[in-house]
Amino acid sequence: MNIAIIGLGLIGGSLAKAFSEYTEHRVTGFDQNPAVVDSALRTGAIHQAGDPTALSQADVVYLCLYPEAAVSFVKQNASHFRPGGLVTDACGVKTFVCEQLTALSQLHGFVFAGSHPMAGKERSGFEASEASLFNGASYIIVPCEAPKLAVDTLKQLALEIGFGCIRVTTAAEHDRMIAFTSQVPHALACAYVMSPQCPGHKGFSAGSYRDVSRVARINEALWAELFLENREPLVEELTELIRHLDGIKNTIENNDRNALQALLRCGRQIKEALGE
Amino acid sequence: MNIAIIGLGLIGGSLAKAFSEYTEHRVTGFDQNPAVVDSALRTGAIHQAGDPTALSQADVVYLCLYPEAAVSFVKQNASHFRPGGLVTDACGVKTFVCEQLTALSQLHGFVFAGSHPMAGKERSGFEASEASLFNGASYIIVPCEAPKLAVDTLKQLALEIGFGCIRVTTAAEHDRMIAFTSQVPHALACAYVMSPQCPGHKGFSAGSYRDVSRVARINEALWAELFLENREPLVEELTELIRHLDGIKNTIENNDRNALQALLRCGRQIKEALGE
Repeated sequence: MNIAIIGLGLIGGSLAKAFSEYTEHRVTGFDQNPAVVDSALRTGAIHQAGDPTALSQADVVYLCLYPEAAVSFVKQNASHFRPGGLVTDACGVKTFVCEQLTALSQLHGFVFAGSHPMAGKERSGFEASEASLFNGASYIIVPCEAPKLAVDTLKQLALEIGFGCIRVTTAAEHDRMIAFTSQVPHALACAYVMSPQCPGHKGFSAGSYRDVSRVARINEALWAELFLENREPLVEELTELIRHLDGIKNTIENNDRNALQALLRCGRQIKEALGE
Repeated sequence: MNIAIIGLGLIGGSLAKAFSEYTEHRVTGFDQNPAVVDSALRTGAIHQAGDPTALSQADVVYLCLYPEAAVSFVKQNASHFRPGGLVTDACGVKTFVCEQLTALSQLHGFVFAGSHPMAGKERSGFEASEASLFNGASYIIVPCEAPKLAVDTLKQLALEIGFGCIRVTTAAEHDRMIAFTSQVPHALACAYVMSPQCPGHKGFSAGSYRDVSRVARINEALWAELFLENREPLVEELTELIRHLDGIKNTIENNDRNALQALLRCGRQIKEALGE
């Protein structure tokens, strides 16, 4: 298949490298930065640099841009997409992206299904990308109006490049779950390191500090956009977390050992019930 | 040296194994559960089971019990301690323990300095203990009224069993830092998994979920005790965290991208300034 990857950052670069390394598909790479395209060509991550003709030959287009940029790219380039071709994205929010791209797909005669490769790291950009980024990771597909065949193609491609688990769901469920599993931990990491104790933590910290603070090394432009494109579910999850933290804090303030122990036990039991 | 270890759980068991495996010191082990003492003898973690005579021959006593239990043990057994002998603990809170044990040391003629080996895992008990638990970890010493010679002995012993870094501080500083680096993450993990989304996270989660929720598998009796013995600093840290989380939540509710981005940038910059 001809695969076009739009945006060769951490995710797009890793998809390109994975397709080139693990499959026989032909990979065309697009990036607004010509130096990145050169680097991708030189390292063999892509077979050719993208142009409108290459776009019209793509069987599958992966939009690996921030959500707003992904929508803009499609608005500007939809006339070049192959009629009936499959377009997907890699955005961390789905309702925002899927509503707009589904409407555009119907207008321009391509097929759209949303995707979210659940992988990342604390560095970004093409230099940080790697073919093995998705090994064993979860790939979430939001079919929107796409036919089963298109969803099957995305599943197949995901398995070819190493994803370990595929989840098909709705945009609303995706966004509610991701607010909890990914967005809250990122907000939390930033809030956590704002403590006046943080700069002096060395020698006093171990795994707990490291784990909670890890993702504070955040790409603030990307995450501010993702947070605001998922406002309602994220505010709900943050409210929930703050409520439970307040509950624990109150039992400590009140020196209420039984109530505190009951809350902590509840945490342990939830974790144990999940077999974790 | 003759080393007595009181309590052969995760920390005491690991200290015993590390001393037996990495040093020539003679290790005597005490535990209220005779089966644990048998197991420690059988696996070579200790050279002999403890009794009052062994206690009177110990050059260094490590109290590896919960804080209240550590104080009780000393109250009941101080008459058996070798006059001038060195006693330390392994508790996660220091003001609570040090005040009481310093007073008891002066009353009974032994030397007390507080310790906190910064290591742990999600399992507890002797079966979970291992000689390598402290490899590269931080060992915090709170000298209290102990002479320099005693502190030097504790440092030397810590280095012999693999600790990578030694920090000497006051009980107040220890407790303030530990509230941030260790106690908040444990409270947080429990509060986090209380979200209604948690039971359905599989397929939607990656490293961020795993890292924040890891320590929710908590020993609630131990941690409820530790939290309540460090109430003031912990309540202060929880208040701080909730305030910053609220701040982030408000910028999201208000759809204020600049303010949100500034808060996230602040998190990133703190982390980067630490070289992490």
